[in-house]
Amino acid sequence: MIPGPTPVPESVLHALGKHPIGHRSAEFQSIVRTTTEHLQWLHQTKNEVLAITGSGTAAMEAGIINTLSKGEKVLCGENGKFGERWVKVAKAYGLDVEVVKSEWGQPLDIEAIGNALETDKEKKIKAVIVTHSETSTGVINDLESITKHVKRHEKALTIADCVTSLGACDVPMDKWGIDVVASGSQKGYMMPPGLSFVAMSDKAWAANQDSDLPKFYLDLKQYRKASSKNSNPFTPAVNLYFALESSLQIMKKEGLPQIFARHSLHRDAVVAAMKAIGLNLFAADGHGSPAITAIAPQNLDAEDLRKSVKERFDILLAGGQDHLKGKVFRIGHLGYVCDRDMLTVIAAIEATLESMGKHPTTIGAGVSAATKLLNQAQ
Amino acid sequence: MIPGPTPVPESVLHALGKHPIGHRSAEFQSIVRTTTEHLQWLHQTKNEVLAITGSGTAAMEAGIINTLSKGEKVLCGENGKFGERWVKVAKAYGLDVEVVKSEWGQPLDIEAIGNALETDKEKKIKAVIVTHSETSTGVINDLESITKHVKRHEKALTIADCVTSLGACDVPMDKWGIDVVASGSQKGYMMPPGLSFVAMSDKAWAANQDSDLPKFYLDLKQYRKASSKNSNPFTPAVNLYFALESSLQIMKKEGLPQIFARHSLHRDAVVAAMKAIGLNLFAADGHGSPAITAIAPQNLDAEDLRKSVKERFDILLAGGQDHLKGKVFRIGHLGYVCDRDMLTVIAAIEATLESMGKHPTTIGAGVSAATKLLNQAQ
Repeated sequence: MIPGPTPVPESVLHALGKHPIGHRSAEFQSIVRTTTEHLQWLHQTKNEVLAITGSGTAAMEAGIINTLSKGEKVLCGENGKFGERWVKVAKAYGLDVEVVKSEWGQPLDIEAIGNALETDKEKKIKAVIVTHSETSTGVINDLESITKHVKRHEKALTIADCVTSLGACDVPMDKWGIDVVASGSQKGYMMPPGLSFVAMSDKAWAANQDSDLPKFYLDLKQYRKASSKNSNPFTPAVNLYFALESSLQIMKKEGLPQIFARHSLHRDAVVAAMKAIGLNLFAADGHGSPAITAIAPQNLDAEDLRKSVKERFDILLAGGQDHLKGKVFRIGHLGYVCDRDMLTVIAAIEATLESMGKHPTTIGAGVSAATKLLNQAQ
Repeated sequence: MIPGPTPVPESVLHALGKHPIGHRSAEFQSIVRTTTEHLQWLHQTKNEVLAITGSGTAAMEAGIINTLSKGEKVLCGENGKFGERWVKVAKAYGLDVEVVKSEWGQPLDIEAIGNALETDKEKKIKAVIVTHSETSTGVINDLESITKHVKRHEKALTIADCVTSLGACDVPMDKWGIDVVASGSQKGYMMPPGLSFVAMSDKAWAANQDSDLPKFYLDLKQYRKASSKNSNPFTPAVNLYFALESSLQIMKKEGLPQIFARHSLHRDAVVAAMKAIGLNLFAADGHGSPAITAIAPQNLDAEDLRKSVKERFDILLAGGQDHLKGKVFRIGHLGYVCDRDMLTVIAAIEATLESMGKHPTTIGAGVSAATKLLNQAQ
């Protein structure tokens, strides 16, 4: 129950464990063709979705360095560890970075981003780089409103880290006009880590023509050229493609509205449960991510709780990152997660709190609150 | 029987298909520790070997961009498709590239490389970038002699693409003094593609201090820092680590001298077989790679032969790349390959040539020549 690697269906693991085939073979090209079509469905886009063998960071870096040039100004939204990371990437490539910062746990300040864009009369801002679902804090940022501001600016691109939002909530790339969407396989895709994905709008591809930042392995032009032939520029993780083909089939069968409703319900159930138990939520009220919930328990070390839950129940919770270590634990409810898993993790947390003598209310309070919501949705 | 993805043992596939675990967990750290030790054994080095989720190109690019700075001069050996690729990478990052070219099929001109280094009195050459086993032509370059010339130069580094040589023949990194060794999982490692490896000498790490080429996902400093804690800077392909742990155990059990002898024997067997059949070898005599043999058949389209062997025997041979398409076919004998596989592929080629009416001599000539050598080694 961490926000990645997320649980993987058995059929996807079986696909993964098949013997690899040649990556230049007709059989493999057929897999690339099918998965690309399904990725477009998942991204709700007409643009190609390119797969990179690498982590989500590689996809996000590719989105940045393929659309921008040295010295160009970018606006980075930063309200957690991943927001911080994109600032580092932008600075590593010599971009001129303006940061719009919010406290960890708070959503990005949409008005501040809007103002920065509106006052940029010389149109110096070439991109707004944001994290949709901030995995470190469990906050979902209002990407739709951000894209509206960016579109009014006209010149800038929206480059979005959708690593833990894609496949968990609605990310209609074309409808909202997101220019770059980056994601990773070990999240909503319900498969192991190792593949990442980047989709770019026509506007982003136009910017790519002028982009002068050096790249080779992450040069998306090469991926696009190969993709048009249902191929890859470099040897891809063939077995992860087998897994991708399998997991996307499962996702298509479930359907996008159903996937989004399930994640939203599970977020609501865990939020209700933690409140009923009497534990504080870390993310500002109403801004919780459908992928992950961060809890800031009072009067106890979150790491102790995490260890006990792992030892007794073999359920892995995520810890707090950086300054939140020991202060926060996080429940991933992303990907291949069902009602049973939600009741299980809540019950295990309650049992552990009780055996530590730290349950703030009554055992069963959390399970009860979650059950009510889950049953209502039946 | 292509030079990657190579055949994968069943136990490695089983390891691959296990459910992923958290990449920040103690269990995973233990796998990173063990695999790193075994990778050092395979590389014959005391330096850390860093694993990148990506292709061999990513590892090679990482080696180049982590040791050099913009505008610095490099000497690139080019005698095939991969040599060409490293020239492209170097140019993409604004390096000043001098190319020492040999014809495809010929080995790199060691004397020319030596002369270029010797006449560089101002010590402008910062690195010599070469491919050890040139997969596109089946030529093995004399990396040991190249490192000797580079060491006499003192300033330059040797950056070596050992993608199809590591795990196939002796690449004693520390003994020869190779500064950067790059490799990929789908080759001698006997596992699927998706992980790549880069090991750097102390001299290369010293050069890293001054390297100013921009990078983030391929920033090896971050990998080294994480590796010291048995971890990774970004989410790695966890399942490919499971496979790596399993395949390295198999390799350790076989032993390096045995692995090298097996590859060398299989190269000799296929060379003897092709000569006995009456087919021309593409690589210059005595310079054949222990990983792959390229054959330039007379009076027939190599693609026709390849297709027939695939259709009738379900054995995939590699085709010629770029201008060699149709002129050359390549037999991979790298990784998890045994005597049986060698006899099988030779017999299948002979049978196909015969049914095409194109066998230049007598059916069985190839199998007979190979068998003699294989039996002598028993």
